Amino acid sequence: MNIAVAQSGGPTCAINASLLGVYRQALKENNIEHIFGSINGIEGIINDDLVELNAVVRTNDDMELLRQTPSTVLGSCRYKLPEVSEDAEAYRKIIGTLERHGIGAFFYIGGNDSMDTVDKLSRYMKKQGKKILVMGIPKTIDNDLVCTDHTPGFGSAAKYVATTVQEIIRDSSVYSIDSVTIIEVMGRHAGWLTASSCVLRANGEQAPHLIYLPENKFSVKSFLEDVRRARQVHKAVIVAVSEGIRLDPDETGMEQHSGAIPVDVFGHEALSGVGKILESIVSREIHCKVRSIELNVMQRCSSHISSKTDIDEAEAIAEDAVKAAMQGHTGKMMAFKRLRNTPYTVVTEPVDASLVANAERFFPQEWINKAHNNVTDEAVDYFLPLINGEQIIRMKNGLPIHYHI
Amino acid sequence: MNIAVAQSGGPTCAINASLLGVYRQALKENNIEHIFGSINGIEGIINDDLVELNAVVRTNDDMELLRQTPSTVLGSCRYKLPEVSEDAEAYRKIIGTLERHGIGAFFYIGGNDSMDTVDKLSRYMKKQGKKILVMGIPKTIDNDLVCTDHTPGFGSAAKYVATTVQEIIRDSSVYSIDSVTIIEVMGRHAGWLTASSCVLRANGEQAPHLIYLPENKFSVKSFLEDVRRARQVHKAVIVAVSEGIRLDPDETGMEQHSGAIPVDVFGHEALSGVGKILESIVSREIHCKVRSIELNVMQRCSSHISSKTDIDEAEAIAEDAVKAAMQGHTGKMMAFKRLRNTPYTVVTEPVDASLVANAERFFPQEWINKAHNNVTDEAVDYFLPLINGEQIIRMKNGLPIHYHI
Repeated sequence: MNIAVAQSGGPTCAINASLLGVYRQALKENNIEHIFGSINGIEGIINDDLVELNAVVRTNDDMELLRQTPSTVLGSCRYKLPEVSEDAEAYRKIIGTLERHGIGAFFYIGGNDSMDTVDKLSRYMKKQGKKILVMGIPKTIDNDLVCTDHTPGFGSAAKYVATTVQEIIRDSSVYSIDSVTIIEVMGRHAGWLTASSCVLRANGEQAPHLIYLPENKFSVKSFLEDVRRARQVHKAVIVAVSEGIRLDPDETGMEQHSGAIPVDVFGHEALSGVGKILESIVSREIHCKVRSIELNVMQRCSSHISSKTDIDEAEAIAEDAVKAAMQGHTGKMMAFKRLRNTPYTVVTEPVDASLVANAERFFPQEWINKAHNNVTDEAVDYFLPLINGEQIIRMKNGLPIHYHI
Repeated sequence: MNIAVAQSGGPTCAINASLLGVYRQALKENNIEHIFGSINGIEGIINDDLVELNAVVRTNDDMELLRQTPSTVLGSCRYKLPEVSEDAEAYRKIIGTLERHGIGAFFYIGGNDSMDTVDKLSRYMKKQGKKILVMGIPKTIDNDLVCTDHTPGFGSAAKYVATTVQEIIRDSSVYSIDSVTIIEVMGRHAGWLTASSCVLRANGEQAPHLIYLPENKFSVKSFLEDVRRARQVHKAVIVAVSEGIRLDPDETGMEQHSGAIPVDVFGHEALSGVGKILESIVSREIHCKVRSIELNVMQRCSSHISSKTDIDEAEAIAEDAVKAAMQGHTGKMMAFKRLRNTPYTVVTEPVDASLVANAERFFPQEWINKAHNNVTDEAVDYFLPLINGEQIIRMKNGLPIHYHI
């Protein structure tokens, strides 16, 4: 048979490693012939916009560069597959493309929205009596998928965040005057990535002194008390705050978002700006030197400081997805199960994509301190293995080399 | 004799390498005994707040970690030394501290403000008949010092900017819808750091498609025309813009800075925010997907991706400053003179600090294209050697190790 693979959702440093994993394992499977890449996620399947990977990823060099290139070389999409009852046209087009190219298995690398697509498509195939397997491969820097210990892409994002926060700590500590630095971290409604800045403790850093996650209600009053207290102890107070915290306009005296909140096709609100708002509040209420820093998209694309563990795992879990499909699995997402921390050991297992679809896994309450302004050492133990190891990055002219299709 | 060294102004990735250069060379000089570090720049000399470096930088390991630690381990300041005629008190305190500790040479690592201090102090010493030498060691990510080919700290900042812009290009290219991405880069009133993003051309990138520097008047009308034209050619338009460009409020329909513009003790305006303003303008006028990204302080402290050439040079030029002082030089800043590009060869030479003090070196007009929206290939040749080579970074728990005094 032939297979197809697509990449979806927001970019990460590990999503091309998963593409490579599918490709490499498919090359090893005797009953797989052609390996197609779908351009811009499921849209490429709907529009019959495929590229034969064998033709574009030819050498070991190509593969190594693919591994170190951030974002999605096949492009991505935010397309929401409708229910069959609403609109069967997309499904007919998908089946058309897959059958036209003799594709017996489709691999979708993405987050919980993509797992919704995996679930819907696999159910449709069964109902229609089509022998086309649909498998999900997890990917998100948000680490918010259920049924898995963690997600590919998260470890590299966490390594970038911790490395950068440590550098910002140095940068913030140079002047003799006191200051507050607020670092806004991605992660949508889950606090995993913000919380992961706690790993700096393992290297003796006390900062970030305050960590705020969206898992608990945010109070501006408590926040100001926390900052005032921290300023009595630390010359340069470092605060890590999730983009997803909710500010009560009655408390802040300002709107979190100017005008209407933009919403994407999945109904997710566009988040950002809490750092700037908290900066204004600290400036207004505490009258000290304060700045806010948004780590922005660098959190999801800084492959020059990616985690070797993350990249290796992203490739391995994709290989296992191909193996699972060859065993007949469909409608599943491959998940990580952590067996132990010392030595760090994970295995993969297929889980029902329907369980993952549209669900969110939040940072555990038991790892958040009582004051809701920091995390416990259990979190450090959870995060540390995920940021371990460095990729050897191939350079040219002093710059990382990126793979281009 | 004993010597003292201090670090001043904004942090960089290379300023601790220069500290190490002074220290290592001083250890080699037979007539230097004690090596003092001044806490928070010249303020440490004024307040007699010194640390003996021999006591805190003891092993080769300490030195290697110092080299890879961003920002200033001795702290920094933005203190403006007054004219003697205005206030001789600071000068008396400085002489007091230096004589109390038998210090015969003082090395000041910093930018043009620090060279102002070097100039004033050295003139004062001569006038008072004091045999105390004062030497400047350049440092700034802005690369805006006159009389030198480039400045330590710039190469690492440029390497970070180019690496990150390349990653943002990947991140911006994933969706099928068109977009504009505006990246705001530091550099105060000089365009060097923004212009340096052109090095990506050497690796085949076309982006950034538009580069705006503060060296020329910025026109919102021309900018919008440029963006519209670029959108006809490129799906994901990438714009690099200097924080220092001046927006005409009559043209933008909004103030560049809300309220009064904060000014530091040197009379420099606090710059930032042009990216966000241009984002609003593009959104309003062109109605396309647009986002702005501020690279923020990460540009000056991301030592995990520092340039080996830059770090090596930062150490070497500081060593040469000690050698020059031992030859009796005072009131000078050590400068780089580039002899050739292939193979890249630079030498150092002492130049009068008075020439560097309070002056700014701008990006050359002859390297800016006629449309004032990009730079020429001569600029690529200038920048490439400065970002060459990677530091081997010592890691622990998946994170760079930082040196702490």
